[in-house]
Amino acid sequence: MVNGTRTGGHGTRSGGNEPCTGGDGPRAGANGPRTSANRAGTDAGFDAWFAERARVNEQRVETIPFSALSGWDFDPATGDLRHHTGRFFSVRGLHVRPAGPGGPPGWSQPIIDQPEIGVLGILARTFDGVRHFLLQAKAEPGNINGVQLSPTVQATRSNYTRVHRGGSVRYLEHFTDRRGRVLVDVLQSEQGSWFLRKRNRNMVVEVDDDPPVHDDFRWFTLDEIRALLHRDNLVNMDARTVLSCLPPEHPADEHGALHSLTEVTGWFTEAKTRCEMTAEVVPLTGITGWRRTPTEIASEDGGRFRVIAVDVTAPHREVPAWTQPMLAPCAQGLAALLYRTIGGVPHFLVQAQAQEGCLDKLEIGPTVTRVPGEHGGLPADMRSPFRDVLDSLSPDRIRYDRVQSEEGGRFFAAETRYVIAELDEDFPTEVPSRFCWATPGQLKELLRHSHYVNIEARTLVACAEALA
Amino acid sequence: MVNGTRTGGHGTRSGGNEPCTGGDGPRAGANGPRTSANRAGTDAGFDAWFAERARVNEQRVETIPFSALSGWDFDPATGDLRHHTGRFFSVRGLHVRPAGPGGPPGWSQPIIDQPEIGVLGILARTFDGVRHFLLQAKAEPGNINGVQLSPTVQATRSNYTRVHRGGSVRYLEHFTDRRGRVLVDVLQSEQGSWFLRKRNRNMVVEVDDDPPVHDDFRWFTLDEIRALLHRDNLVNMDARTVLSCLPPEHPADEHGALHSLTEVTGWFTEAKTRCEMTAEVVPLTGITGWRRTPTEIASEDGGRFRVIAVDVTAPHREVPAWTQPMLAPCAQGLAALLYRTIGGVPHFLVQAQAQEGCLDKLEIGPTVTRVPGEHGGLPADMRSPFRDVLDSLSPDRIRYDRVQSEEGGRFFAAETRYVIAELDEDFPTEVPSRFCWATPGQLKELLRHSHYVNIEARTLVACAEALA
Repeated sequence: MVNGTRTGGHGTRSGGNEPCTGGDGPRAGANGPRTSANRAGTDAGFDAWFAERARVNEQRVETIPFSALSGWDFDPATGDLRHHTGRFFSVRGLHVRPAGPGGPPGWSQPIIDQPEIGVLGILARTFDGVRHFLLQAKAEPGNINGVQLSPTVQATRSNYTRVHRGGSVRYLEHFTDRRGRVLVDVLQSEQGSWFLRKRNRNMVVEVDDDPPVHDDFRWFTLDEIRALLHRDNLVNMDARTVLSCLPPEHPADEHGALHSLTEVTGWFTEAKTRCEMTAEVVPLTGITGWRRTPTEIASEDGGRFRVIAVDVTAPHREVPAWTQPMLAPCAQGLAALLYRTIGGVPHFLVQAQAQEGCLDKLEIGPTVTRVPGEHGGLPADMRSPFRDVLDSLSPDRIRYDRVQSEEGGRFFAAETRYVIAELDEDFPTEVPSRFCWATPGQLKELLRHSHYVNIEARTLVACAEALA
Repeated sequence: MVNGTRTGGHGTRSGGNEPCTGGDGPRAGANGPRTSANRAGTDAGFDAWFAERARVNEQRVETIPFSALSGWDFDPATGDLRHHTGRFFSVRGLHVRPAGPGGPPGWSQPIIDQPEIGVLGILARTFDGVRHFLLQAKAEPGNINGVQLSPTVQATRSNYTRVHRGGSVRYLEHFTDRRGRVLVDVLQSEQGSWFLRKRNRNMVVEVDDDPPVHDDFRWFTLDEIRALLHRDNLVNMDARTVLSCLPPEHPADEHGALHSLTEVTGWFTEAKTRCEMTAEVVPLTGITGWRRTPTEIASEDGGRFRVIAVDVTAPHREVPAWTQPMLAPCAQGLAALLYRTIGGVPHFLVQAQAQEGCLDKLEIGPTVTRVPGEHGGLPADMRSPFRDVLDSLSPDRIRYDRVQSEEGGRFFAAETRYVIAELDEDFPTEVPSRFCWATPGQLKELLRHSHYVNIEARTLVACAEALA
């Protein structure tokens, strides 16, 4: 699937498993007022800046055999793939029983265990009465196109506690010391099919002073970022999740919601109570249905993902060369959020979505999801009954349809097609118990707290807010 | 510590480790208007009813050797104590490293693993314009005084999915089918030092019809329940946690709070990020510092708790006789909530309290806690610096000081002294980073969600609401 060498940079990707869909120019312009340097500027200004950052941050990513990893080894006792410091992350085994110990045997799989909580922080500042956000053009080895727009700070704890021995992380002090007004500070989970109980600290801190704008950084208005969300593979996953947690521009109002917030959280409680799924960490050597070769750990049916090793050369980064394991999905994922207007108020159809790596069994996900190469073990009742509805919608119902990347530091060329579509007003409000109608304002209220809205749904919340 | 036989019933306890403090008469009267049978009635009426329920529900609880347990065995491979069906709960081992893998070795201990989510449900109904709650006089083998006032329904999933093969659980259908207005429906955690990631579903459902009031059940107004919270060991833990989750009688208002709710949740996020504690399940045979005899598993320093086995004869219960393991704390616990008025608004001084069995490392706890026989491994920075403040307060500062029981189905004669005390207005608002000032309204807002406010703090929220 992934072979040989991939060279990052704007639109110069080769060797991925999907046709390159990124970087094909603006679809919606970014054209707010600008009055000083280092703000997003016109489309043309942004594109020139971004192309330059991509050139400067060019990196070379090469797949290598596991034996060529430096500092990483398979633990002799468990077969887990770990760093010799015990930090960063490890690849372990997980045994999942979708119906609990009394049910069918379920399946097992590798999973990334990264217990440290990192910081995804965006710095905010008001210029000329308009709030701006400082984003970074950042390269990651798994990124489609090499460079994507990232939060001001995107740092693992190993990063900033100096396990890397690299340079200091720019702007980090604003988040660790919470200098300024904290607009967002909440732990949010990441991919429950690939990560074991992983979450990061999503932060937005607003300052009054004028911090220096270093290379690779640029101020953007919310409107400008939202316009860029209409391009494929440009605004990275970490930026999308932080944006989704921003307080609503208009205070939420329960008036007109089909269900009260107490009913929505009660539905969520009910779903957790019913869910009997268990997920137990097991030695990586103990998983079945996967085989390890010198270059990959892959499912025998070729379906889901592969664990691979890469060698990265990134002359511009603090650590200019390293090797690491990555998780490479075998196909593009899909996440679709359907909505309809009920009593004049838009309502998203959301799902209580069990995922094996969730800290607490399930979170609120989109109406329809397809994780790459859905494993055969997935019980029928975990599949979305609304997949057919999505497929049968006429094109004029599709409000958003873009391919976005998942996190490029752990996932290699992981793309998901994100879709937002409007249902007819005669679409039944009665839905299976795993589903619920929630207003955008209710989702925003839940986003003030951890472990309600999953990463795919958070991307879709951010994208929905980009629909004018 | 616990020897021989204990006979339940009102005030007839023997063989416990603490002087019996319960059932010594009313301190605050329960004297609302009553217009029909089966409501709480006057103090005298309540006392007569409750004494009769205690007599009818008398049970005999006897400590037995593990070998006399029926259906329970030590797993030959792990030494875990489990039921042959794999249901109910098991006693496993936990290895805790308070500073994570890189820190000191930490400690290990037994812990109760009960993954099923049970229902703690209180039925509500309005009579003559006043909301009433249906409580049950329920015996549990570990209860001080045998019978305590419990929620309408207190059922493990094994209870109501018929693993017990007992009779049906009264009123359960109101909660499983959510018949009526759902006022509360949220998962809340239980004792993080004794339970592994345990939580129950806290529910209040209001009905309009007039359900039959069976033996052992009685309607109470909130004022009546609050008056009974001024007696020792009467309102059980399960009732207290559900009551703490009731929506506030007056909508919360952030006005006057020292910190916004975003700041309070941000403080909580920060505390989680800093906490490096890990807790890993290990075989029970693999724990150190504990010894197993034919009758108990006890810490070698005699400090914390013992795992024992009991034989229960309860002629009035659905299952009239059974044996089970229990956890018996070695001393009385302490949980104290200090508050002061800031700008005219009361603020509780709460703590981000790491506990080994927490689903997510820590929750918000009282200002001061002392778990029975605090183990030597507890690092200094996990102890409350406000213990001395509490000890030095003059008696007129103590607003609440009662002994209440922890859950009697798993814990044997587990008592905690709950204290609420007011600090002077010159008490510094600057507190160590592990602590934060939060208003009662803010805690109520957080109680709409899971895993914020721990069980000891929830009891104190319920008790604080009982202070007129």
